[in-house]
Amino acid sequence: MARDSVLADLGAKGADGGAARELTEAVRRYRIDGASVRLADHDPGGTGPFTARDRGLARALLRAHTAWLTDRQRALAAQGQWAVLLVLQGRDAAGKDSLIRHVMSGMNPQGCDVTSFDVPNAEELRHDFLWRYHRHLPTQGKVGVFNRSHYEEVLVVRVRPEHLRSQHLHPSLIGPDVWDRRLLDIAGFEDYLTRNGTAIVKIFLNVSKEEQKERFLRRLRDPAKHFKFSPSDIRDREHWDAYTEAYEAALGATSTPRAPWYVVPADRKWYARLAVASILVHAIAELDLDRPAPLLADPETLQAARAALEDA
Amino acid sequence: MARDSVLADLGAKGADGGAARELTEAVRRYRIDGASVRLADHDPGGTGPFTARDRGLARALLRAHTAWLTDRQRALAAQGQWAVLLVLQGRDAAGKDSLIRHVMSGMNPQGCDVTSFDVPNAEELRHDFLWRYHRHLPTQGKVGVFNRSHYEEVLVVRVRPEHLRSQHLHPSLIGPDVWDRRLLDIAGFEDYLTRNGTAIVKIFLNVSKEEQKERFLRRLRDPAKHFKFSPSDIRDREHWDAYTEAYEAALGATSTPRAPWYVVPADRKWYARLAVASILVHAIAELDLDRPAPLLADPETLQAARAALEDA
Repeated sequence: MARDSVLADLGAKGADGGAARELTEAVRRYRIDGASVRLADHDPGGTGPFTARDRGLARALLRAHTAWLTDRQRALAAQGQWAVLLVLQGRDAAGKDSLIRHVMSGMNPQGCDVTSFDVPNAEELRHDFLWRYHRHLPTQGKVGVFNRSHYEEVLVVRVRPEHLRSQHLHPSLIGPDVWDRRLLDIAGFEDYLTRNGTAIVKIFLNVSKEEQKERFLRRLRDPAKHFKFSPSDIRDREHWDAYTEAYEAALGATSTPRAPWYVVPADRKWYARLAVASILVHAIAELDLDRPAPLLADPETLQAARAALEDA
Repeated sequence: MARDSVLADLGAKGADGGAARELTEAVRRYRIDGASVRLADHDPGGTGPFTARDRGLARALLRAHTAWLTDRQRALAAQGQWAVLLVLQGRDAAGKDSLIRHVMSGMNPQGCDVTSFDVPNAEELRHDFLWRYHRHLPTQGKVGVFNRSHYEEVLVVRVRPEHLRSQHLHPSLIGPDVWDRRLLDIAGFEDYLTRNGTAIVKIFLNVSKEEQKERFLRRLRDPAKHFKFSPSDIRDREHWDAYTEAYEAALGATSTPRAPWYVVPADRKWYARLAVASILVHAIAELDLDRPAPLLADPETLQAARAALEDA
């Protein structure tokens, strides 16, 4: 689907067509195209073409995007030939959960599976590191969201060595190149998936250390949010720079034209949601969804069935 | 573990050490080492160093091999750092089921999972082609047997185009290189697995067209064996040459030092079983199983627990 026709769709549903176009341009710059990534070059506070005064416009645009997604999800399901995987990564309090709620809520849950990857269980730890993620990939015709993902295997597992120790690997398999190897394996796995019908979009929600602190404090002040706080959140802040390095290595090694990474500024949640919605819209627009699915019956059989029902 | 020590083990358990050595030499020649494979060069009727008069010796040797496997399976489970995958492929009536029964029966079923891959279900057909196989891989510490395997995706799916059509792939994903691509993907997947703790051994049970006919006739004559016969068995005989070509392509493209293929003569079942047992023994002997597993408690804790129990 041509970009202009997508933008027309978004405009036609009430939002400002010009704003949708500016958003598209801004979002394109978040895509990682080279192997060398420095997060310091990416502003977590960015709001693209918008200012804080454009909140109303942003809300309308988000509505237009989710309406578009809802509509195309139907085509995706009817045709049943493509799966879409949205990988969401980010530090604690980057806004992953609320982003899923805001961007994906218009979708038919029958066609949208969200999988949150927390601490692996004993069986998962006794398998190769991609095993648990492969199991939960969306089937053709569905959209899958990974809330955290196989990238944790080169992020938290890299930063906290006790996690690697719990994976039962024989020492001969853990060389100095273990992380580079894992990144190559992930890139190879994703390349295989895209060649077999899964479109992949990967988002790093880039929150600043200051904004994370504010969000933690809000959680600690509000009893209704206490459940979201874990002591390990504070511990991970001590490893902030190690995570930065691990993210930079991962983003640089695994962003490919078929499975690109986007570093999305996440200090303003309203903007991060809109940016991710735009990225998802354009990824789905690239799929050929208008070709009809193969029929279960040939046209003559359909015609005969209709005639039989009408005569009954 | 050095080969000599394995052979000594086999000899020490009552079989002829010399015969075990000759068997090892014969079996090594079944390994595929190059990319160009012609099945016509492999005699399905071979019996290695044995003649039909050596059946008693062969039985004793098989017992020694299965005893060795039973013993080492315990070490494999205790250490919990390696998984072993035995891939069994072969045409209908090649003897896969009875081979599993004879070679694996000494093992503790808790540490040995056999998965038979029949017609894929609807969910499996809506995933990438490796999905169903990855799910069933053995965990570390276990031996897994694939009775048919991911290779069916480049064998029956290649020979019978209706199977590819049922995989819901968008036409743009099915180019002229689809089979070469799948073979590369399989080789890449297996390479990843071996680097992450799974030892892989692949067996093609090479039965002749004449012997297959005899086995089908035996099934048709004996009512107790009727359940094993399917009309599709005969239909597949019409595609004998197409399967030969598909096997040759698969064996040549995916036999690697870490995940080698063996073309095992299968017209004499007693010999095929012995040959596969020998291959499996030597594959497991290459793993470092004697290094103890990491302890759940440190030595002082163990000592304290012992003292506490003794004093109680």
